[in-house]
Amino acid sequence: MEIWFTEKQTPNLSLSCKITQTLHTEQTEYQELAVLDTVQYGKMLVLDGMVMTTEVDEFVYHEMITHIALSTHPHPERVLVVGGGDGGAIREILKHSSVKEAVLAEIDGRVVTLSQQYLPTIAGALTDPRVTLAIGDGVAHVREHKNKYDVILIDSTEPIGPAVGLFSKEFYQDVSAALTDEGIMVAQSESPFVNQDVIRMIHRNLKGVFPLRRLYTASIPTYPSGLWTFTLASKKWDPLQVDPEKIPQLETKYYSPQVHVGAFKLPRFVEELTHV
Amino acid sequence: MEIWFTEKQTPNLSLSCKITQTLHTEQTEYQELAVLDTVQYGKMLVLDGMVMTTEVDEFVYHEMITHIALSTHPHPERVLVVGGGDGGAIREILKHSSVKEAVLAEIDGRVVTLSQQYLPTIAGALTDPRVTLAIGDGVAHVREHKNKYDVILIDSTEPIGPAVGLFSKEFYQDVSAALTDEGIMVAQSESPFVNQDVIRMIHRNLKGVFPLRRLYTASIPTYPSGLWTFTLASKKWDPLQVDPEKIPQLETKYYSPQVHVGAFKLPRFVEELTHV
Repeated sequence: MEIWFTEKQTPNLSLSCKITQTLHTEQTEYQELAVLDTVQYGKMLVLDGMVMTTEVDEFVYHEMITHIALSTHPHPERVLVVGGGDGGAIREILKHSSVKEAVLAEIDGRVVTLSQQYLPTIAGALTDPRVTLAIGDGVAHVREHKNKYDVILIDSTEPIGPAVGLFSKEFYQDVSAALTDEGIMVAQSESPFVNQDVIRMIHRNLKGVFPLRRLYTASIPTYPSGLWTFTLASKKWDPLQVDPEKIPQLETKYYSPQVHVGAFKLPRFVEELTHV
Repeated sequence: MEIWFTEKQTPNLSLSCKITQTLHTEQTEYQELAVLDTVQYGKMLVLDGMVMTTEVDEFVYHEMITHIALSTHPHPERVLVVGGGDGGAIREILKHSSVKEAVLAEIDGRVVTLSQQYLPTIAGALTDPRVTLAIGDGVAHVREHKNKYDVILIDSTEPIGPAVGLFSKEFYQDVSAALTDEGIMVAQSESPFVNQDVIRMIHRNLKGVFPLRRLYTASIPTYPSGLWTFTLASKKWDPLQVDPEKIPQLETKYYSPQVHVGAFKLPRFVEELTHV
């Protein structure tokens, strides 16, 4: 017998993984949550039918949403993750020795609890004493804090459902206000093959809010098209001005000083998406 | 009614595309060939159940197997493609004004004929007067030519079925002999997420045959994991020594001078596959 999980990535495209079992399924207050055990990618967290992360490829997303910004800021001490309840971004943030406080603002506490239970290699760092769990609305958390964070990572689902507010100009203005004068934000910004409108929308909404916008890419096999983007917006520091030789040595599988440089060398059709 | 084509990319992973119709199916002398019309990716060429190319994403593969080598060689005149019966690599080769002859050594003439019929935007350049069609065994073609080609591109399927001979040390030795003293070869070398053994085998087999080996990546949504690699082997010229400002202006959608540089900035786990 074979059991397969299928994500309909678009109405016309789907990715399927053979599974050995469903470890958990529930309807939380916010979304349908499942933890599956897949043969190809290990344990997998699924929200509203969309693959969020897997044991095998999570390192790409979590390293790449984190280390570009934290290696660009010269001394990041306070970092906020909005979303990201699986804890992977927090784990990567804590690899930077300058960090004193990492706050996780996740709206759905069940994502945190079940990640801790089923995905300990991803969520394990959430018990670190430098971590503050702020279960609740990330938009409100950002609005209520001013001039506090050195880096804010928007580790959200796509702009439908609970995450829709995380892509608006008003939210980016609040993010800017929650950052210090030298602050940097990074948002996951979807696939340049299948979500070109989302990338353009993010860049339009960031325009005028931050003086510097940069798009970069990473390869994530379980996300639609396998090519993913992140958008960095910054008040002062430019990731392209970082000397690769001064990037801190980190234990990583994807990110490296040369990836820090290469991730911004965009294919021509991707580069054009930032011309808004 | 919905009709879906599914490629089982590994025993535990599959990619599916909704189709409007099968335009052609046949069993050729060498393989099962199909041309499908998909909603997401346009017309799609399928060999032995594996996606070879699609109208929407073919530009990535064809530009990236071609332009790195042809922009590295200072004056490529004679170029051979082994496999690649769809004609996409030939189309890209002909964008280089130095090229006088482009030879296509494709074992299965039906791939050429049906690509010309159904995929004219890809195969259209095959009627260019600079092109020679050499329908037959690419391994034999390479063995029978000495010191002729400036660049040889190995545009093959994976190392099973008709393509298995295109990954051996003996074949690479013949490729070296078919190249001039300043010659360069590029082989498609599969996914670093799902075909790590193939990448290591290619690099082991190239070791000692060419003085210089370089692995680089490109993002191809319809191939397993979405991240693909190419292996360049060279007698003299190093793609990393090319001045990006001197790269010829080409009409492309993926490749650019900055992609020429960035494609070699490998994620750490990919870089490690070349340590053979």
